[in-house]
Amino acid sequence: MKKIISIVASVLASCAFASAQQALGPGTGLVSPEINPDHSVTFRYNNPKAITVSVAGDCIEGRVPGGDGMAAMTQGKDGIWTYTTKPLEGELYSYSFIVNGQKTYDPSNVYLKRDVASYTNYFTLSVEKYDKGYWYEVHDTPHGSVSKVWYNSPSLGGTNRRLTVYTPAGYEDSKEKYPVLYLLHGSGGDEDAWSDLGRTIQILDNLIAEGKAKPMIVVMPNGVYFNSSAPGYTVNMFQPTMLNSRSDSTKEIEESFPDIIKFVESRYRVLKGKNYRAVAGLSMGGRQSCALSLAHPDTFGYVGMFSGVVPPSSQEDEARYAAVFKNAPKLYWMGVGSADGVKANYDKERAFLDSKGYKYEYYESDGGHIWRNWRVYLTIFAQKIFK
Amino acid sequence: MKKIISIVASVLASCAFASAQQALGPGTGLVSPEINPDHSVTFRYNNPKAITVSVAGDCIEGRVPGGDGMAAMTQGKDGIWTYTTKPLEGELYSYSFIVNGQKTYDPSNVYLKRDVASYTNYFTLSVEKYDKGYWYEVHDTPHGSVSKVWYNSPSLGGTNRRLTVYTPAGYEDSKEKYPVLYLLHGSGGDEDAWSDLGRTIQILDNLIAEGKAKPMIVVMPNGVYFNSSAPGYTVNMFQPTMLNSRSDSTKEIEESFPDIIKFVESRYRVLKGKNYRAVAGLSMGGRQSCALSLAHPDTFGYVGMFSGVVPPSSQEDEARYAAVFKNAPKLYWMGVGSADGVKANYDKERAFLDSKGYKYEYYESDGGHIWRNWRVYLTIFAQKIFK
Repeated sequence: MKKIISIVASVLASCAFASAQQALGPGTGLVSPEINPDHSVTFRYNNPKAITVSVAGDCIEGRVPGGDGMAAMTQGKDGIWTYTTKPLEGELYSYSFIVNGQKTYDPSNVYLKRDVASYTNYFTLSVEKYDKGYWYEVHDTPHGSVSKVWYNSPSLGGTNRRLTVYTPAGYEDSKEKYPVLYLLHGSGGDEDAWSDLGRTIQILDNLIAEGKAKPMIVVMPNGVYFNSSAPGYTVNMFQPTMLNSRSDSTKEIEESFPDIIKFVESRYRVLKGKNYRAVAGLSMGGRQSCALSLAHPDTFGYVGMFSGVVPPSSQEDEARYAAVFKNAPKLYWMGVGSADGVKANYDKERAFLDSKGYKYEYYESDGGHIWRNWRVYLTIFAQKIFK
Repeated sequence: MKKIISIVASVLASCAFASAQQALGPGTGLVSPEINPDHSVTFRYNNPKAITVSVAGDCIEGRVPGGDGMAAMTQGKDGIWTYTTKPLEGELYSYSFIVNGQKTYDPSNVYLKRDVASYTNYFTLSVEKYDKGYWYEVHDTPHGSVSKVWYNSPSLGGTNRRLTVYTPAGYEDSKEKYPVLYLLHGSGGDEDAWSDLGRTIQILDNLIAEGKAKPMIVVMPNGVYFNSSAPGYTVNMFQPTMLNSRSDSTKEIEESFPDIIKFVESRYRVLKGKNYRAVAGLSMGGRQSCALSLAHPDTFGYVGMFSGVVPPSSQEDEARYAAVFKNAPKLYWMGVGSADGVKANYDKERAFLDSKGYKYEYYESDGGHIWRNWRVYLTIFAQKIFK
């Protein structure tokens, strides 16, 4: 009985309110995550009164390569919970803590990223030069500029729309003209997604500095035709969801995309013509890239479809493909994960392209419908264009 | 006894791990915060198994105006915790949930901001035109561009440093030249602080659209001379603290600031000369603005010190002030909160300026050393310069 009362007391006390004035983040005094010499990573979390704490993320072994796993953290006598992973490969890893069953963030780590409406902490790790993590980290190279600008889209009723533009190092100090990669996000995303989640800035800075990609401008528009901009930049502060931030139809994007090209080609010093324009996107943006190449067969010399493609389903579609491949793009590139639900579409698309003798490149990676794959596809695709 | 066992069981069960795969954020299905017709705000949080949940923030009445308060949330039969504030004035409000004594975020609200290493949710509320919230919200106006660019600082050993630049709507499409406001952050901050926490973009867009401020370029540098850029843009991903992100000495900033001006005046279409340059900053940045005006008496025609000032303490200092006020700045503006610890410095500075007959403007607000005040000071200061 005494023991039970003592348990009740301690459990209740443990859950009672401590102090809202406690120093958080800067004052946690903990190093988390810590990358160890063997490239394992240790997480630490100070919450003496929690009953259970787990760490969940893609740095913990899951069922699918690159998918999320979860592991219980162990509480030390000091009340601090810890967990150390296996040695990891170079990569950008995401994780959260699960405290008494509720997801929260690691208060010792300011690196937090938003995907649709969900936040996770992250860290990068590079084990050797040119591994995945290497491309995603910041190195001591010249850096490009990143601008958030607004353009008017007459095709979408004259709305003012927000756009992210990466101009490579040296752009402002030269008179040179540059080719342009148009890079499209997926459902739930916006014009901030590729720069914040896709490491586009770091990948391009690094590939260009290493001489592996041509200096190029990267334009990242908002691909949801009825949203003008990312959360925080609209008149009403909306909460993004997968439903309110996706365009199932590609028609509006096909029709309004020339507004973007016109804006970019008048505002920036760019090389014009098919061979200096690439379009690529992930998931919904992959479907849009496919649709844009079909709707504007003379506009893009390079087309990239990352985990999103629309295989032809009618004779009309086939006629549009014929128009594209009559004067074939220099590169028609498709990447998908072996565990991705959309892979069946890729099989269908490839069978069709093969049957017609249309040239394309296909890249299959491990894993599913995840940013880990899209970062890899961008790293590969960016090295193949404008050459 | 049975009752006690049942309590133990339910408390333990409540704290047990639920599921890491639960939908978070987009799938919470809750509206939080919800702004009610009477301008009170309701917070909702779904955590049936929590023992205590509070909401802490500046929308809850605290001891000091604008300071943080805290209130217990009430759990409904559906397990959802709620709390409704009193009717609120127009403002940008910050809050966090405190769950079983640990700070966490509101998973229904994607609006999250980082101050040094601490994250809090936020929302804006405007009750009437031109109240505080009005200036901080996005309106259907033309929007300026925001760029993250890099400049080389020979005075700081040739380091490549990151800079935020706001160019007003119309800048790119005109040939006009613009005046420049240099806006400096405080300890723990970086070149992202004024745009992310200070609502600089929205304040300037709105003031310019309403004809209350002159169109101007705003340059937000990193004011910590040994940091090249904000977290995430350095070679080593560092965790910012108040200690590793502050420069107690103003000497390096005084010496290296001409590198920034030189860069801005060669890269952008700007009006040159003292009457087209303003410098202002908060806390450490206020001290730096004060020091910059003394070190470069012919450079800035407008000087703003927000909760940071360095009153003269020697005859040498007094001689420097004399040099500044010989050809006095058009505006020497000081703002501080009545509950701010640095207010004594302002009293000392004012007594000195009065004794010499040097002209200045002084603005005292409620509250302490907080962003709420700095946003107000920027809104006031921006309307007074370049006129």
